[in-house]
Amino acid sequence: MLIVMTKKATPAEIEAVVATIESKGFMARPIPGGERVAICVLHNEGAVEASFFGGLPGVKEAIPVTRPYKLVSRESQAHDTVIDIGGVLVGNGHFTLIAGPCAVESEHQALTIARLVKKAGAHMLRGGAFKPRTSPYAFQGLGEEGLKILARVREDTGMPVVTEAIDNETFDLVEEYADVIQIGARSMQNFSLLRRAGKSAKPVLLKRGLAATIDEWLMAAEYVMEGGNTRVILCERGVRTFAHHSRNTLDLSAVPVVRQESHLPVLIDPSHAAGRRDQVIPLSRAAAAVGCHGLMVEVHHEPGKALSDGAQSLYPSSSRTCAGR
Amino acid sequence: MLIVMTKKATPAEIEAVVATIESKGFMARPIPGGERVAICVLHNEGAVEASFFGGLPGVKEAIPVTRPYKLVSRESQAHDTVIDIGGVLVGNGHFTLIAGPCAVESEHQALTIARLVKKAGAHMLRGGAFKPRTSPYAFQGLGEEGLKILARVREDTGMPVVTEAIDNETFDLVEEYADVIQIGARSMQNFSLLRRAGKSAKPVLLKRGLAATIDEWLMAAEYVMEGGNTRVILCERGVRTFAHHSRNTLDLSAVPVVRQESHLPVLIDPSHAAGRRDQVIPLSRAAAAVGCHGLMVEVHHEPGKALSDGAQSLYPSSSRTCAGR
Amino acid sequence: MLIVMTKKATPAEIEAVVATIESKGFMARPIPGGERVAICVLHNEGAVEASFFGGLPGVKEAIPVTRPYKLVSRESQAHDTVIDIGGVLVGNGHFTLIAGPCAVESEHQALTIARLVKKAGAHMLRGGAFKPRTSPYAFQGLGEEGLKILARVREDTGMPVVTEAIDNETFDLVEEYADVIQIGARSMQNFSLLRRAGKSAKPVLLKRGLAATIDEWLMAAEYVMEGGNTRVILCERGVRTFAHHSRNTLDLSAVPVVRQESHLPVLIDPSHAAGRRDQVIPLSRAAAAVGCHGLMVEVHHEPGKALSDGAQSLYPSSSRTCAGR
Amino acid sequence: MLIVMTKKATPAEIEAVVATIESKGFMARPIPGGERVAICVLHNEGAVEASFFGGLPGVKEAIPVTRPYKLVSRESQAHDTVIDIGGVLVGNGHFTLIAGPCAVESEHQALTIARLVKKAGAHMLRGGAFKPRTSPYAFQGLGEEGLKILARVREDTGMPVVTEAIDNETFDLVEEYADVIQIGARSMQNFSLLRRAGKSAKPVLLKRGLAATIDEWLMAAEYVMEGGNTRVILCERGVRTFAHHSRNTLDLSAVPVVRQESHLPVLIDPSHAAGRRDQVIPLSRAAAAVGCHGLMVEVHHEPGKALSDGAQSLYPSSSRTCAGR
Repeated sequence: MLIVMTKKATPAEIEAVVATIESKGFMARPIPGGERVAICVLHNEGAVEASFFGGLPGVKEAIPVTRPYKLVSRESQAHDTVIDIGGVLVGNGHFTLIAGPCAVESEHQALTIARLVKKAGAHMLRGGAFKPRTSPYAFQGLGEEGLKILARVREDTGMPVVTEAIDNETFDLVEEYADVIQIGARSMQNFSLLRRAGKSAKPVLLKRGLAATIDEWLMAAEYVMEGGNTRVILCERGVRTFAHHSRNTLDLSAVPVVRQESHLPVLIDPSHAAGRRDQVIPLSRAAAAVGCHGLMVEVHHEPGKALSDGAQSLYPSSSRTCAGR
Repeated sequence: MLIVMTKKATPAEIEAVVATIESKGFMARPIPGGERVAICVLHNEGAVEASFFGGLPGVKEAIPVTRPYKLVSRESQAHDTVIDIGGVLVGNGHFTLIAGPCAVESEHQALTIARLVKKAGAHMLRGGAFKPRTSPYAFQGLGEEGLKILARVREDTGMPVVTEAIDNETFDLVEEYADVIQIGARSMQNFSLLRRAGKSAKPVLLKRGLAATIDEWLMAAEYVMEGGNTRVILCERGVRTFAHHSRNTLDLSAVPVVRQESHLPVLIDPSHAAGRRDQVIPLSRAAAAVGCHGLMVEVHHEPGKALSDGAQSLYPSSSRTCAGR
Repeated sequence: MLIVMTKKATPAEIEAVVATIESKGFMARPIPGGERVAICVLHNEGAVEASFFGGLPGVKEAIPVTRPYKLVSRESQAHDTVIDIGGVLVGNGHFTLIAGPCAVESEHQALTIARLVKKAGAHMLRGGAFKPRTSPYAFQGLGEEGLKILARVREDTGMPVVTEAIDNETFDLVEEYADVIQIGARSMQNFSLLRRAGKSAKPVLLKRGLAATIDEWLMAAEYVMEGGNTRVILCERGVRTFAHHSRNTLDLSAVPVVRQESHLPVLIDPSHAAGRRDQVIPLSRAAAAVGCHGLMVEVHHEPGKALSDGAQSLYPSSSRTCAGR
Repeated sequence: MLIVMTKKATPAEIEAVVATIESKGFMARPIPGGERVAICVLHNEGAVEASFFGGLPGVKEAIPVTRPYKLVSRESQAHDTVIDIGGVLVGNGHFTLIAGPCAVESEHQALTIARLVKKAGAHMLRGGAFKPRTSPYAFQGLGEEGLKILARVREDTGMPVVTEAIDNETFDLVEEYADVIQIGARSMQNFSLLRRAGKSAKPVLLKRGLAATIDEWLMAAEYVMEGGNTRVILCERGVRTFAHHSRNTLDLSAVPVVRQESHLPVLIDPSHAAGRRDQVIPLSRAAAAVGCHGLMVEVHHEPGKALSDGAQSLYPSSSRTCAGR
């Protein structure tokens, strides 16, 4: 943390800031500059809140310097984390393809799609049993019945399944059936859910929130790791911007940044970013090229009849394009 | 919903869209234009997902026309909702001031601030006992002890208290002590929490999410109302944009829009929007002028020692400026 | 400028950064911290580009500390600038109302509106003769004929006129007729136009760009002042965000920030921010309350017939609400 | 255009809207729905402004349906435009690499870099002689001397040169020396400059503005084409969002959208999007994969000494990675 004083800050004001820093158990080191004084905050464990200092008399700005995350940081673990999910590896050196419907609608639907995407090269099946929906009137998923269908499909195809947990009430149930537990974008800062995921023995796929900075996203992963669960997979799925030709704006620069800052694997979900089928294949290619560790795409054998997100679902034949690389 | 076909859409493609619409139980009404055909979707209860149609052959765009919300809509209730909280009225015709610390830190701190803000004109006390924090290492609130302190402060000052519920695990506890249950910005789309709030007998203060559209915010309120709890107070607290001179960008145009679209009261929280004390008073004045039904501001008697969000907290003497109108 | 080194930066890397700083004529002051070294850049005139250092080996981040602007800065002029435009004062202690049509369409239209807004309390007339339009096929303004109409309306009503200059080719013409020369949001970083405005004897009203930070906006004003024209009026008119219930998001927090950072007057244009008539009055009230120095609003006597921006134009009777304060 | 009436709109209000539409020479076609009436606007040449109708009594919303652009539209030209620049082809079927320094600093610098990037596979040289700079105190480019240097470097290397025109005053000069005239992001809606470019015999490279929608970007290209210059190359370079781990957020979904909507070639500039060298290579790979027609990257042989944008410039050896595909 660097506290920048105004040009007119008095010695008394500077001393008061130093005293405030020291009262919190940190060390203060004032640096006289040409026109103004700046004060470094040292020996802090974890992050210092800029807001402590921003309002003190004579303070122009409080600028955070160090990163707030620890366990997810590459500074704490230099080598890449690679996660083994029933023989499917996720992480550096592997390119993992997760495909499937947005929501599980029936055993017939899930099994049809699963067999098709497996044939097309997918390594894992995705499919929602509990769906977070903007409207209370929209289809909310099949619940436990959906999870049972996923289990039967796994038995049939041998593919591990990824499915979302939306609350602590249903977490145990999801944990029982899933191979990977997804935390959705809208739940990225549901801290109770993150803590529960931190106690799970199953790997967690953590999507980036719609307006989350990379720091906030990594801090959400830190919650999971802090609970003891080290198997976290990050997943970028587009952020909300002024642009409206795609549902969200896929932020591919997140991949090199995450790979530099963290040792955790990072996937891309082009389907939710695009929201339109005709952008999914080009964005999938771009995602692979930018250096992510895999894709999660929505596939439906009859998108026109899908109960949710039909417009962004690929036909199974298209997923071959993704897997064929 | 209006389905716009491409110029080159064939009669067969148009018929296929009509068939898809009808297969969902809606009525399709094609409108031939000069250059292209558009198809209206009629007789739909609730919203139709644009995504059903966006990807069909020959479809250029699917444009939603009607609003997705019902119970919160002014079309469903023409008169303004006014909520009585232990004698404090929130809603049209009233300007309610909620003030207090970001987090309850001790009985001494809470009581000192509460007495000061009451004297300055506040009607209700705010104060967090369970705090959603970006970092797992940051102060998470005093929990039940914080709630007990709030109850004692209420007894002393007579002010109803507003405090946040962050998960279903602790909801019962919060409900027992709070007069108004706050759902924070990061929880705005925690649908399980919204459903639980919908079953509560206590009023709910629902903050707008950092990247939430007004439609999404009203749909979150719809979740609460759909559960049977009609006492919902909306609260705008700034949205995330490219601008960084304030922590978030306070979107005051939300107030006239919400007041037109909905019958629910809408407050402004300038403290979280600004993130800097020197912007809070000007934004409070603006909020009052734009026509909101009240303010929720953070006040701390010793901001430099606050355990969270000190920089945006007003001194108690400043809150008089807010209340003095 | 503060250069933060990585934890593993070697002494040689630190020395290389110091050498780079010194090779640019600045002074380098390394500050050893607990875990890493940071290096302050001192004695720089004007801003140092962070990009010089961001890519050097061992550098984690380069953080700008001082502000890049000078002449517009309150540090360079402590008292508020008040501008006299034919007897109308703009700046601290005054609240100036500028009203009129988006575009001058005819002498009848301009005169009718001018008389009505004057009666309603407006101090100056706005009206475009040269219009920047997104489409080459849209109405581009009456050009010189529009300027002549404005001059005749000024003669009739006594109100100074504000009109936009969109390029250097027509600047002389605009300068000849206008009392205040507007630089529009899309021209905020048209640096040639800013330089030309800096040579003008007429005051300049400089709108904030759709995606401009406050620093960039003040730097644009710095271009004008650097050319010798000290009479600059800033005007916030909404920024582009994900929100779409208003055309742009009015950023009222810009007012306290600009007033703190700069001595220049700052107005608000609620019409372009809202893009919808029903938001203009509430946002005008909010703008006045937040502490700006005046408003610029669009008024049309027959909005349904306006050649541009009819939907956001007030009826003349409404402008009385704005002026009545 | 579709005008959606409120549920309570009276027949008189509906008739008034119809009359307004017809008074503008369009055809109105009311469509009675279950709960409300919508009115289609037909037979309009070019776009109708939604704002004409948004404020009329009984109108809930005016929704644009058709695209505003014509000449740039794929509906007006089905086949892809391919542009020949001294033997270098830009457009479908080709992948063109443009590389060079941000600014021309000296003949030695430009020639050194040009030879290196040519060897590494670049087809054209980029380099600014006139630089749009946020600060009036920053290096503004060498001007005509810079153009002469580019001409000599072209003679030496045989590579066509791309350089920016920032205003009409210096356009003739730039046009004389350049092979491709760049219109920068900050000039994307400098309509006078676009009209001048429309009269040029040289191809134009048009960057997307920092907050421009794809419609606005294509309309800017429409200005150039409307003037008679059909050789327009589009270039995406990142948009401004809340995210700050890269200077701007590269919007790769723009590529499939532009390629669907328009016949013009579209390049990517990863250097300005990233603003950091370590993101440029991954984003270049992603850009190639998403299906753009080429890259424009900044390269400097001594980034630490570059007068502008050093941090985002690649070393010449890195550009081989881009060209090697």
